[in-house]
Amino acid sequence: MFLSTHGLTGIRYYCKNTSTKVRISEALSGASLGADVTVQGWVRSVRSQKENLFFHVNDGSSLQSLQVIASSNLNSTLPTYGSAVEVRGILKKSPHPKQPFELEAKEIEIVGECNPVEHGFVQIHTPVITSNDCEGAGELFQVESTCPQDSEDHNFFSVPAYLTVSGQLHLEVISGAFSRVYTFGPTFRAENSQSRRHLAEFYMVEAEMSFTQSVEDLTKVMEDMFRSVTELVLTQCAEDVDLFHKHVTPGHRENVEAMLKKKFTIISYSDAIDILKRSSEDFVFPTDWGCDLQTEHEKYLVKHCGNLPVFVTDYPYDLKPFYARDNQDHPQHTAAAVDLLVPGVGELCGGSLREERLDLLMARLEAAGLKDTYSWYLDLRRFGSVPHGGFGMGFERYLQCLLGIDNIKDVIPFPRFSHSCLL
Amino acid sequence: MFLSTHGLTGIRYYCKNTSTKVRISEALSGASLGADVTVQGWVRSVRSQKENLFFHVNDGSSLQSLQVIASSNLNSTLPTYGSAVEVRGILKKSPHPKQPFELEAKEIEIVGECNPVEHGFVQIHTPVITSNDCEGAGELFQVESTCPQDSEDHNFFSVPAYLTVSGQLHLEVISGAFSRVYTFGPTFRAENSQSRRHLAEFYMVEAEMSFTQSVEDLTKVMEDMFRSVTELVLTQCAEDVDLFHKHVTPGHRENVEAMLKKKFTIISYSDAIDILKRSSEDFVFPTDWGCDLQTEHEKYLVKHCGNLPVFVTDYPYDLKPFYARDNQDHPQHTAAAVDLLVPGVGELCGGSLREERLDLLMARLEAAGLKDTYSWYLDLRRFGSVPHGGFGMGFERYLQCLLGIDNIKDVIPFPRFSHSCLL
Repeated sequence: MFLSTHGLTGIRYYCKNTSTKVRISEALSGASLGADVTVQGWVRSVRSQKENLFFHVNDGSSLQSLQVIASSNLNSTLPTYGSAVEVRGILKKSPHPKQPFELEAKEIEIVGECNPVEHGFVQIHTPVITSNDCEGAGELFQVESTCPQDSEDHNFFSVPAYLTVSGQLHLEVISGAFSRVYTFGPTFRAENSQSRRHLAEFYMVEAEMSFTQSVEDLTKVMEDMFRSVTELVLTQCAEDVDLFHKHVTPGHRENVEAMLKKKFTIISYSDAIDILKRSSEDFVFPTDWGCDLQTEHEKYLVKHCGNLPVFVTDYPYDLKPFYARDNQDHPQHTAAAVDLLVPGVGELCGGSLREERLDLLMARLEAAGLKDTYSWYLDLRRFGSVPHGGFGMGFERYLQCLLGIDNIKDVIPFPRFSHSCLL
Repeated sequence: MFLSTHGLTGIRYYCKNTSTKVRISEALSGASLGADVTVQGWVRSVRSQKENLFFHVNDGSSLQSLQVIASSNLNSTLPTYGSAVEVRGILKKSPHPKQPFELEAKEIEIVGECNPVEHGFVQIHTPVITSNDCEGAGELFQVESTCPQDSEDHNFFSVPAYLTVSGQLHLEVISGAFSRVYTFGPTFRAENSQSRRHLAEFYMVEAEMSFTQSVEDLTKVMEDMFRSVTELVLTQCAEDVDLFHKHVTPGHRENVEAMLKKKFTIISYSDAIDILKRSSEDFVFPTDWGCDLQTEHEKYLVKHCGNLPVFVTDYPYDLKPFYARDNQDHPQHTAAAVDLLVPGVGELCGGSLREERLDLLMARLEAAGLKDTYSWYLDLRRFGSVPHGGFGMGFERYLQCLLGIDNIKDVIPFPRFSHSCLL
């Protein structure tokens, strides 16, 4: 049975107990004020207070969630964060200025439980000072004591030491014990860049997962993280986000909502090259197979995919660092690596399966003259090696993407970049 | 009415509804199995699951907490973390091997609400790379790009840059907007030490509070933090802690319990010097007023105070950095600074009121030849200056203290110290 309601496009029908099933966007419109309605969705926050349990339900019809108030007298199960629920109740005006309407629950059904421990990643502090050079790039900061060292030793650490460019190799060590690990900490690049998306000191979320066999497994975790973090920030830090979306970057809220609406596109690097080659755009940098994607290419690809996030997978083997897993394909020869490109920012995340096969890894390190330096890393493949992979996300770039901030220096309190280290 | 129960020292008396009031330690002993009992205490964890809300109550009679199961059918208010509660219920055997007994709640009364937002400290990422030298010590790491710089500029940042030794000065900036702020991140000392309590890279929790007027206000927050974090870790990470307390450092659990039992002692530096002078101990370092406290002195003071944590306040003005607040006392001349010494570790925390008076701060910086370097810091006293203070706690030393681990290199996955930067 359909009910047509003035000004509402949603579909309504009667469900058990003469309660009308409505979408969250409808419930928030207030058209059903005072009615007995049923909403379905996922729990986005839970807060217990005095005699009531408060939680927010979101079903994707609106970025805003509906607050549900469940009295402790209620003869229903209590939902946990992330669980799928069906809630029947009465739509009331909210006394709180932040939300016009709220649902006073009469019945709560847990449709799908959510026990977040199952996805449990263990947080690890990876070191800032390291004797490795993970990316093999030259953009490193060296670290040395300002005090003169012993005559024999020229270095405080006896070896040259650098600021970390990534915690990945250390995470790989620890993932051999905890399976799923992550780090959230500062990383450094001595890039002589004044660009609006580079810092000399920035934060990265990096994750590493044992028993991971495909790039799709990585994209799934990356996309899940982007979605769940974004939804969490939008609900838990609504005031802070609104400050930007209302006063600094009006209109950006719609961009964020659009990003969350559809599943992210996945294209291969080879597809990306085809798209670039077929375009009428006048690129400065070459678009031949084997060339690295430049900012102008990233921008075009994001635009081509509807101004939405897009994963690019399976990059040329020669473009990726020694640890990226060889796809052993022909004739193109790619590695199982993936980048996530997002509107306004370009590359937000980069990840790969790691080469877990000792012979292939050893051959590549040997060719690069790094076999001795990374003997400890080779040992990880000698003892209990498993297929594994991981990724890193630039935290300040994520904030740019979420808030619509053009310059990365505006999303960190004390930005460090070439020729600038204020305070 | 008193009931004497074999093997129990606690006092019992009947309360409303013929429920017997028992302490948590008694409840956990199982002597009241099947009885209708009432416990009083503070909520140490809350977890909602399916049809039940689980929470742990602790009343200080035991370090272990009692698990309470509250059905969602229960006509009672739901407690939040930290609130004081009185719970009536039936003591049952627990199906879970981790706890022998649990309380099935029949009635819950919130005695004192707890809204943790009120103590809200805002987390800030203070930078790792800085052009300051906060402590004025020489034990710094300098940072420089490995790539050659422009001919004009010898430094990547145009100025010499260092790894931070403390986020304090940056926190002071931000505390001028958020009042109460903290940072948790890596800090660095180029100390040429192989000691069991020094690292070249370690983590600090640092807090800064505007509108703070006395050292006692600081000790209160420091002690509260130590207690609440310890209780949280002991309850939320019980398995991890038990691994150490059972297999690595047996007997240490009692030391931790003893630390939590009594309020921490507070003595002044001058009192500390008196205690050292009166002791029969044969100290290597001098114990004259004005001398810094050495490890041997810290050890003795902790022992003297019952092998329990002890605050030492009001250090000689000349021993403390430029930002420490002048007590303007005579004839001793002290600064409003405080250290927390703990068993086995020695100095765990250090803090001070900060000199908020422009004229005094300027005079001191001028005398040290640092007036120009810290002109931005002086500006903080020119515009909206408030009495404020803060402290830092060494995170790895805290872990040593909690777990009873002798060597600091055993509580961090990748220790960095002089002549060692493995992996």
